[in-house]
Amino acid sequence: MFIRNAWYIAAWSDDIRQTPFARRILDEPIVLFRDSSGAIAALEDRCCHRGTPLALGEVVPAGLQCGYHGLVFDRGGKCVLVPGGHTIPPDARVRSYPVVEKDAFVWIWMGDPSRADRSLILDYPYHNDRKNWPHKHTTYPIKCNYMLLIDNLMDLSHLGFIHKETIGGMSPALHVEAKMRTVKTPAGVRFDRWMLDSEPPPTYVKAAGFKGRVDRWQEFEFVAPGTVLQWSGAVDAGRGVFKDFKYGGSRDGGFSLRLFHGATPETENRCFYFWSTANGYRQNDPIATAELFDEIARAFNQDKTVVEAQQARLDENPGAPLIDIHGDGARIHARRAVERLLAQENSAVVPVAAG
Amino acid sequence: MFIRNAWYIAAWSDDIRQTPFARRILDEPIVLFRDSSGAIAALEDRCCHRGTPLALGEVVPAGLQCGYHGLVFDRGGKCVLVPGGHTIPPDARVRSYPVVEKDAFVWIWMGDPSRADRSLILDYPYHNDRKNWPHKHTTYPIKCNYMLLIDNLMDLSHLGFIHKETIGGMSPALHVEAKMRTVKTPAGVRFDRWMLDSEPPPTYVKAAGFKGRVDRWQEFEFVAPGTVLQWSGAVDAGRGVFKDFKYGGSRDGGFSLRLFHGATPETENRCFYFWSTANGYRQNDPIATAELFDEIARAFNQDKTVVEAQQARLDENPGAPLIDIHGDGARIHARRAVERLLAQENSAVVPVAAG
Amino acid sequence: MFIRNAWYIAAWSDDIRQTPFARRILDEPIVLFRDSSGAIAALEDRCCHRGTPLALGEVVPAGLQCGYHGLVFDRGGKCVLVPGGHTIPPDARVRSYPVVEKDAFVWIWMGDPSRADRSLILDYPYHNDRKNWPHKHTTYPIKCNYMLLIDNLMDLSHLGFIHKETIGGMSPALHVEAKMRTVKTPAGVRFDRWMLDSEPPPTYVKAAGFKGRVDRWQEFEFVAPGTVLQWSGAVDAGRGVFKDFKYGGSRDGGFSLRLFHGATPETENRCFYFWSTANGYRQNDPIATAELFDEIARAFNQDKTVVEAQQARLDENPGAPLIDIHGDGARIHARRAVERLLAQENSAVVPVAAG
Repeated sequence: MFIRNAWYIAAWSDDIRQTPFARRILDEPIVLFRDSSGAIAALEDRCCHRGTPLALGEVVPAGLQCGYHGLVFDRGGKCVLVPGGHTIPPDARVRSYPVVEKDAFVWIWMGDPSRADRSLILDYPYHNDRKNWPHKHTTYPIKCNYMLLIDNLMDLSHLGFIHKETIGGMSPALHVEAKMRTVKTPAGVRFDRWMLDSEPPPTYVKAAGFKGRVDRWQEFEFVAPGTVLQWSGAVDAGRGVFKDFKYGGSRDGGFSLRLFHGATPETENRCFYFWSTANGYRQNDPIATAELFDEIARAFNQDKTVVEAQQARLDENPGAPLIDIHGDGARIHARRAVERLLAQENSAVVPVAAG
Repeated sequence: MFIRNAWYIAAWSDDIRQTPFARRILDEPIVLFRDSSGAIAALEDRCCHRGTPLALGEVVPAGLQCGYHGLVFDRGGKCVLVPGGHTIPPDARVRSYPVVEKDAFVWIWMGDPSRADRSLILDYPYHNDRKNWPHKHTTYPIKCNYMLLIDNLMDLSHLGFIHKETIGGMSPALHVEAKMRTVKTPAGVRFDRWMLDSEPPPTYVKAAGFKGRVDRWQEFEFVAPGTVLQWSGAVDAGRGVFKDFKYGGSRDGGFSLRLFHGATPETENRCFYFWSTANGYRQNDPIATAELFDEIARAFNQDKTVVEAQQARLDENPGAPLIDIHGDGARIHARRAVERLLAQENSAVVPVAAG
Repeated sequence: MFIRNAWYIAAWSDDIRQTPFARRILDEPIVLFRDSSGAIAALEDRCCHRGTPLALGEVVPAGLQCGYHGLVFDRGGKCVLVPGGHTIPPDARVRSYPVVEKDAFVWIWMGDPSRADRSLILDYPYHNDRKNWPHKHTTYPIKCNYMLLIDNLMDLSHLGFIHKETIGGMSPALHVEAKMRTVKTPAGVRFDRWMLDSEPPPTYVKAAGFKGRVDRWQEFEFVAPGTVLQWSGAVDAGRGVFKDFKYGGSRDGGFSLRLFHGATPETENRCFYFWSTANGYRQNDPIATAELFDEIARAFNQDKTVVEAQQARLDENPGAPLIDIHGDGARIHARRAVERLLAQENSAVVPVAAG
């Protein structure tokens, strides 16, 4: 069961060219393409004539043409040509999905089109700020329910186990004992963690050349249905200040990264993981951007191995009980946010009883 | 659901030697072999003793011997030997299927053996006429219901889209606008198409060296359950004559081919496509035969890609509606012919009520 | 349906080191490991926290630590650490399975732990007797229900068909006609076969250098649920004596092997085949041990092909009837022994009605 009335990332803007691009989203076959005007459209990837995937066709001036018998569909999914100039049956159409290109993403609305309000799409200006936040991005297809990716990001105690040699570093215990504040938000949950006077992980030292211990922060926000925004960094120990459970010291001159994590369901047990890394240090050095991306890629491949094994195990016995531990606070908030949205979407509209 | 009381192509004659040959047909495991007399037999590919595929065994003088414990079955499926001379249990038999070797094919009857009338098998004398119709043949396993192959052949408007660079040629519109007459037949449907004064497709030019425009004809006949006979060709423009919706001019000295298309269900969503090409030009030149085959193979591999993608899409949502367009006439007749046969086969014999 | 209250082979002793070892047994995911004391433990391979396979974790002094968030489980399956020193929820545990290391095997008890009596494990002292029975062993994953392996071993008439070029030899008929005595045992069935004055198979000649004909014996015992003990051999013709359906002559100076066959269900249609070869000749020559293993491996790969094809066929139509022939006596006894144990295990305890 998926939240449908929501914006999901369908692709990166630069994935979509005039060649049709097929992707399954929320278990529906979608074809994305850029029409002759350069605007992006998303249609059901199944010709209404004989069921052929439209992705085998090609973009023509009037829209997307099926590669089998040549029906053409416009951006709205309406059939606008049956070859030979023959009558177009009135029900000749395929479903069209609202799409918005923004901040390097193509966002898609999988629910009721009349509710597709583009002001609901979150902002991620860092993708447009090459000067301060040069970035690099990619997509990983992952064989797990998308919420296992969110779970992963909501409990950072895993850093010390899975990512010892990359972004984790330090002893596992230190990750577990990091100070943390978790706050529910209307659309999810936000948490801040900090580790004062701690040993910097290998990735940080490589990137920013720390000589000694650091003051380190991690700020995460989950925005339902599938986005996690991350800002993490460190400065030389003594320069960081935490007050009222917030980071208040300098963030300059140390290590700082922003990670965008977007999880879009492909099916119930597969998803696409859209992620980018942006470096808030050595911004003029393309090697810094490339190296950070490579380090994070290494870490995310470690996560991929674990969450795919986890999904396989859960699939074997879906109803078997699991237990919660201390570190599950933020994860549980994130799950509840998703459940609330699902419940809202599936609740019948109850008419108010007349007095 | 398959038509069972019908002849299907099981294999090419030259596929079957003394080594057992396994093939699934109408979702039943079959083993074909040539016995010591050279006659072909078809048995259920499952030993009645322990269920082992008989295809793992070998042909012995008395029949086919299971490779596990040595039971021997004759052409009729009767067990004729239990090793050690032990008693043969009376129910020791496997199903045997009527088979007929004819015109380079092995035809198999999958239904009630008492109704297997070999006079029902269609004639294809061109396979025996090397002088006028030298031919080459092969088998493609295709991941689609066999009727999607038939559909493909019943709507030639696809030539301009899928086969632009091979047997299609010309602009798509010309294919769509070809003149056409469709006639229902007792066992299927027949259609004739012609394109006077048209641009010859690349395959035709390569084969017959046309210098200018051509008069082109395509004659197709679908014979249920799974055969399509095709005769196509072209002569220099001006030499073709069409009258009363029939081709009446010369067919000599141009390009002419006969294609045999036989689709046999492997399962509900897989089939075998048995096809041959025969060239009615440059008959003494083996290169002409080989080149024609290669051109058609290229085209059929293009079809394979499309029909397999189509099947995958249809499988996802089998009940979803599709729409018919102008070009679907012959296709719909073919489908109806199959449905009639299925209905006949599945209708109970209703006894006539006494007055 | 599996017999659960029984000892199965989970692995070879030397498979299990401090690195966790994952294996599915009776369709349950198991992780085996050797703890810091060197003792072997077997746990459910699914962390009770988030379902992650514990096999991705590592052995620590207190037990096995999950590789995701660091929970540690002791040999009994109890969670003994939640990182950060946080409270361990009282139900934080995974299932633990009794295991016993004996005669080079790791035996596992898949049923009620309170009934796991280690005295029920059969003895196989030959694995500990390198002087008289040097041996070599391995594990084959096989895509068939484990009983098809047992069936295979209970009807040796297959030797003349499947293993002509290895351990079979001679004409198929001779195998079928071997003299044989079958005796039911409490836990299965035992049979003795002999072939006096027969042609030695290639494997025997290669191993023991026979110049002429031999007296040959085969002694097999099936012990439910999944073990077959085999002692086979041959001496020069004339030195063997059979009396009262037992081999009574010399076994020295010829060819003699012991094969251990252990089949453990992985799922309903997959199993692990644990087997060893031990040579009772040329015991000081490591080449003899290696060569025997290689010959038998060749034969067992032939069996693998057949039983996997058999399983695939049986899966297609599980209820279809099969017939029994003369050679099925021991096989039927073995099947009945398993059915008896299954019936016992699944029968409700019926209270004795009062007088």
